[in-house]
Amino acid sequence: MHVLDEAIALQPAGENLLSGRTHPEYANFIGPYGGVTAAQMVQAVMVHPQRLGDPVAFTVNFAAAVADGEFTIEAIPARTNRSTQHWMLRMLQGGQAVSTATAMTALRRPTWGTTEAAMPAVPRPHELPAEPMRPVRWIRHYDRRIVEGDAPHEWKGQDAGASRTRLWLRDQPGRTLDFPSLTAIADTFFPRLWLRRAQQTPLGTVSMTVYYHADSAVLAATGTGYVLAQAQGQGFRDGYLDHTGLLWNEAGELLATTHQLMYYKE
Amino acid sequence: MHVLDEAIALQPAGENLLSGRTHPEYANFIGPYGGVTAAQMVQAVMVHPQRLGDPVAFTVNFAAAVADGEFTIEAIPARTNRSTQHWMLRMLQGGQAVSTATAMTALRRPTWGTTEAAMPAVPRPHELPAEPMRPVRWIRHYDRRIVEGDAPHEWKGQDAGASRTRLWLRDQPGRTLDFPSLTAIADTFFPRLWLRRAQQTPLGTVSMTVYYHADSAVLAATGTGYVLAQAQGQGFRDGYLDHTGLLWNEAGELLATTHQLMYYKE
Repeated sequence: MHVLDEAIALQPAGENLLSGRTHPEYANFIGPYGGVTAAQMVQAVMVHPQRLGDPVAFTVNFAAAVADGEFTIEAIPARTNRSTQHWMLRMLQGGQAVSTATAMTALRRPTWGTTEAAMPAVPRPHELPAEPMRPVRWIRHYDRRIVEGDAPHEWKGQDAGASRTRLWLRDQPGRTLDFPSLTAIADTFFPRLWLRRAQQTPLGTVSMTVYYHADSAVLAATGTGYVLAQAQGQGFRDGYLDHTGLLWNEAGELLATTHQLMYYKE
Repeated sequence: MHVLDEAIALQPAGENLLSGRTHPEYANFIGPYGGVTAAQMVQAVMVHPQRLGDPVAFTVNFAAAVADGEFTIEAIPARTNRSTQHWMLRMLQGGQAVSTATAMTALRRPTWGTTEAAMPAVPRPHELPAEPMRPVRWIRHYDRRIVEGDAPHEWKGQDAGASRTRLWLRDQPGRTLDFPSLTAIADTFFPRLWLRRAQQTPLGTVSMTVYYHADSAVLAATGTGYVLAQAQGQGFRDGYLDHTGLLWNEAGELLATTHQLMYYKE
């Protein structure tokens, strides 16, 4: 069993309720990696017996630190239409919400389409060095190849002037891409603050949104290939910064777009 | 009383419940303008007696068509921390959810900051012509000055090749900017599909996120000035498209960033 499948395994715990536990292999500096918390919320929708269609939009709010150990996810289909469905979710620990989320699933059908946010011309993953081993546990479960905008190696408080990062990544060991894993990948970016102000300050993601342009067939076809992930900061003010991000597969298909808001202390 | 204040007026209707009604002056082609629906949800947080701080993140999901007439908003503080608070909201009609939302409010304090998404150099609002009268009711309540990327005047199915729109706008008559009005403005963009494929097909916003970089003091200082709004489409596939957007005030301060997902039929 893949370590991500272990991490997102959920057990029925009543109507609209599932139980799970944090996985030590996806530990962050403190508590679990938020991308896997997000993946667990998406998985709660994926395994729900009333689910209609594939995720098209997902927003998770990291309301409080998730403690290592057990949690319960409440996933409520708040509105079911003919071809779309809206979900409200909470992750609970000790009866208190530690995450909230909304999701929208839909039966999709072919239409005219185009990718306006085209994949940039970048070296292929195998032309780039594998990232050296990092001390943080969750990163070891990704094969990451940095294209540009790596985290600073020296913490001198300098301003790089821009905060764009591009990297290729995939689950390690390989695992066919699906909605939970793509969601986890969407949260892979280190804080944009580190590029604009290489100073270590308390910070963390407080909200993340993912719009899925790929359906389950596109994700299955992407398979164990790499995802090109790009993020760039937009505003940094009074304790909060946001970034906007894009995720393509090696064929240049736009799999998802993502945005997040982070808290920072100083 | 300003027409927007009439539109977002809410009456207490029980614990965590407020009632309101759609306003004919913000009618869209069918039903109310989604931006005002979003503003009503934000207002439900703003007037809640337990609110802590200013909105920093807000996501609304348009789950079903809002019928003209009365609605109830349920606004639940799902998690209250020392300086942040997470909200879950539903707009109900006939006991059924027509919108869902999450919001995060926070007590902000001054930190280092920068605007990476700088305001582009564009003509000032008064150098641009006022938009001619439009048949759709809600648009009349905005003073809009198009900089680039206006909706097509001919519907010939052509592809403009890119879908970036920039416009200045403000409430008409003037009204000091606040969180509900900024949220309504964030939904002002016509569908990006119209620039990539000038063809009228059924469509509508299904989810919108706003990250607020301005606090209430910055909004008050912006006053009745114009907001420069920019949006650009990213992916268009199998019935869903997204755009990413930015909102600055005339002083070049980044007030908010916004993203949305739209459904389209063909």
